[in-house]
Amino acid sequence: MQYPEPISKLIEGFMRLPGIGPKTATRLAFFVLDMKEDDVLDFAKALVNAKRDLTYCSVCHNITDTDPCYICEDTRRDKSIICVVQDAKDVIAMEKMKEYRGLYHILQGAISPMEGIGPEDVKIPELLKRLQDDTIQEIILATNPNIEGEATAMYISRLVKPTGIKVTRIAHGLPVGGDLEYADEVTLSKAIEGRREL
Amino acid sequence: MQYPEPISKLIEGFMRLPGIGPKTATRLAFFVLDMKEDDVLDFAKALVNAKRDLTYCSVCHNITDTDPCYICEDTRRDKSIICVVQDAKDVIAMEKMKEYRGLYHILQGAISPMEGIGPEDVKIPELLKRLQDDTIQEIILATNPNIEGEATAMYISRLVKPTGIKVTRIAHGLPVGGDLEYADEVTLSKAIEGRREL
Ligand SMILES: [Zn+2]
Ligand SMILES: [Zn+2]
Repeated sequence: MQYPEPISKLIEGFMRLPGIGPKTATRLAFFVLDMKEDDVLDFAKALVNAKRDLTYCSVCHNITDTDPCYICEDTRRDKSIICVVQDAKDVIAMEKMKEYRGLYHILQGAISPMEGIGPEDVKIPELLKRLQDDTIQEIILATNPNIEGEATAMYISRLVKPTGIKVTRIAHGLPVGGDLEYADEVTLSKAIEGRREL
Repeated sequence: MQYPEPISKLIEGFMRLPGIGPKTATRLAFFVLDMKEDDVLDFAKALVNAKRDLTYCSVCHNITDTDPCYICEDTRRDKSIICVVQDAKDVIAMEKMKEYRGLYHILQGAISPMEGIGPEDVKIPELLKRLQDDTIQEIILATNPNIEGEATAMYISRLVKPTGIKVTRIAHGLPVGGDLEYADEVTLSKAIEGRREL
């Protein structure tokens, strides 16, 4: 026996999402059956609208419903500095901090020779093109503090430094509120390496 | 900064599902943005169709896209026996076994005084009504082997026994392939209690 077709199809739909196996998909599908019809319709519309109305900013490659995105369009932002991140979610984290007022460039990934992802597969050529604009004086490399993120930062740094644009890398170290005892050795070594005189 | 509205709405949609917090919802929403448009449309349709086309069988209360459901309609099944389960998913488990050929009754829950769920809140009145039919000779109580499931089985048993219909309870014991050493004491006690002469 199988579930009736409409529920099998919904289970299959959920299973296409990352990290959702058959058991969770079944649980979610049965939950949907008990939801109010209006809520299900809203969710279905949200899926379709997100896919249809969202695009990537042609300047910074952030996810957006207008092009250019509202950060690139914001005249109050400092156009002389670009913060390079891997992912649109990183922009949210940066903006939550409410301190950075420059622009962004979203690579949409990181270089990873292991996975066959080269510089051309992420938005590095697009970044280099943006840097031809004379207004840009600094790029902050805020790729993730892991092997791929470091490799990507190094790669960009080597290409950009000769142009005279200032290239900086976000600091690595112990997370605020973290405990030295539980820090992994790489973080600790980075924390010591990045030490500053008080 | 917030995400653009279409993505915020999708994140909210995912967050309405059980066990999905803001972090997972965000990850799923971004995954949807990278899905093929056709796959997103299919998923949205599956949501709406599941909600619209599925109903509960008016006889056994199983989830179905026809009423009565195809098990209740199947003339080859033994109409003299009803297996009482808590949930539509339990029917799937029973049918996978391919041994049971009787009918079902899905309670859609279990009695739970702690949560304020009484006999009228699950499909017990509907079960009693079905039992007025003379063709029914046995009911198998296959509610879950936990406090609520046992209480529900006991409650139904007390009501049905006086009618002369045979009332049985599925056996409790060690799961096949299980290890006695790791069995919890309740299961072990049930396994000993239910021992049979070989
Ligand atoms: Zn932009
Ligand atoms: Zn039925």
